[in-house]
Amino acid sequence: MNEHVHQLRVQYPETDQMGTVHHSNYLKYFETARWEYFRELGLSYADIEAAGYMLPVTRCNMHFLRTTHYDAILRVHTRITGLKGVRIWIENKLYNETNELINKTEIELAFVRKGSWKPCPPPEFVTNILTKLID
Amino acid sequence: MNEHVHQLRVQYPETDQMGTVHHSNYLKYFETARWEYFRELGLSYADIEAAGYMLPVTRCNMHFLRTTHYDAILRVHTRITGLKGVRIWIENKLYNETNELINKTEIELAFVRKGSWKPCPPPEFVTNILTKLID
Amino acid sequence: MNEHVHQLRVQYPETDQMGTVHHSNYLKYFETARWEYFRELGLSYADIEAAGYMLPVTRCNMHFLRTTHYDAILRVHTRITGLKGVRIWIENKLYNETNELINKTEIELAFVRKGSWKPCPPPEFVTNILTKLID
Amino acid sequence: MNEHVHQLRVQYPETDQMGTVHHSNYLKYFETARWEYFRELGLSYADIEAAGYMLPVTRCNMHFLRTTHYDAILRVHTRITGLKGVRIWIENKLYNETNELINKTEIELAFVRKGSWKPCPPPEFVTNILTKLID
Repeated sequence: MNEHVHQLRVQYPETDQMGTVHHSNYLKYFETARWEYFRELGLSYADIEAAGYMLPVTRCNMHFLRTTHYDAILRVHTRITGLKGVRIWIENKLYNETNELINKTEIELAFVRKGSWKPCPPPEFVTNILTKLID
Repeated sequence: MNEHVHQLRVQYPETDQMGTVHHSNYLKYFETARWEYFRELGLSYADIEAAGYMLPVTRCNMHFLRTTHYDAILRVHTRITGLKGVRIWIENKLYNETNELINKTEIELAFVRKGSWKPCPPPEFVTNILTKLID
Repeated sequence: MNEHVHQLRVQYPETDQMGTVHHSNYLKYFETARWEYFRELGLSYADIEAAGYMLPVTRCNMHFLRTTHYDAILRVHTRITGLKGVRIWIENKLYNETNELINKTEIELAFVRKGSWKPCPPPEFVTNILTKLID
Repeated sequence: MNEHVHQLRVQYPETDQMGTVHHSNYLKYFETARWEYFRELGLSYADIEAAGYMLPVTRCNMHFLRTTHYDAILRVHTRITGLKGVRIWIENKLYNETNELINKTEIELAFVRKGSWKPCPPPEFVTNILTKLID
């Protein structure tokens, strides 16, 4: 099944004065979850950079549905929804302990050459693994 | 003119290993710029919270168009594009020194009661000021 | 044995342009490790706040000995070295995969009343557990 | 006079659930203030890296004396207190609007070669400027 689940606990510095997670931190949760998924598939992001590529975020569409709180245990669901040309699309859903949807986000990333930031197709060792997940 | 310009300099901890600003930090830039705009209009976000309201982000749609770098001087343009019921819509554009568009983001926020997080219309001292900007 | 070991992996947003962990993040690593230790002892920091107390850091003395890198697996060793009046002292050591010492930090925290920030002795349910560890 | 004053405003994402600045952020305040001081002296940290050097923090000794709050205007005082071999010592004091001392921190940094992280004396264009400040 093309879906990965990553569990995390909300840390104190991630909270703000509202007593919830500062909204910028969700992008960090999704980033951690994404690379854990890749690692499970046999791809480490460190290897991608070592091979001369980077994979920056080019778009994201975030929907914050519910608040959460310090020390909450959250689950990040990650699904790769597309891979075409230089781009990859990912869908993230964040749930709390009682299975309520906290956040839903679509992320687009693009492969670029390290150094030049020039968009380029992913290296073969990446496409070999990712294409199996999409269809 | 319903547009505010806030200038900032990219700080070292905002960079990541790619040598650019980590994408989560743009949300912080826009937040700072938004409250500076409000302050200029005679509204401080601290006053909004003191009056028993909070204004969390409920949606954002971000488009990362160009990379930037440590020590760059960037300009955040903020425009309030809508105000209806409990919600407020804002458009942010981020430019570099040579006037290239780095990021374009639409943000939706909702007024909620502090404590209960229940959505509610903004207090009158806020609507009085903001409605003048929209039409 | 009065020592707790917490393992973590360096995340991308924690790196900076130097290609290492930004030094401010070590304080976050130690905070996470500290509350995991407390949790193992049967104390959650959330419970301490719920009981009307907070435990801010009042001093820290940090020594950065070696650099590290994205994706490294690090171990945080936490030892409670003192508890007296309103204060608690903690020693943290951070090691990399090959057991090299990356950072050594002493942290002092003080119990204060939530709201007033007035220093006060820890609640009994905390002292009962912590005093057993010190002697 | 060998002292630099940098003013800043506490931003929302810098706060935590305690309703104050998370302690890790003071290191970021001091970093920003330090490079603003250097810039005023005619040295940009970006130039130091461009010349093949980096200046990581090797020690810090922080004393948190008072709490502060969102939107507070703080002043960071920066004084270079020593320069010897590969090292440089800096003292930071952080004051609030009513001139109360919030934090006092001593920071040690070391010049290293970019890439190798090997400690090395600072480049001449740096020592020329800094030595004038110390005596």
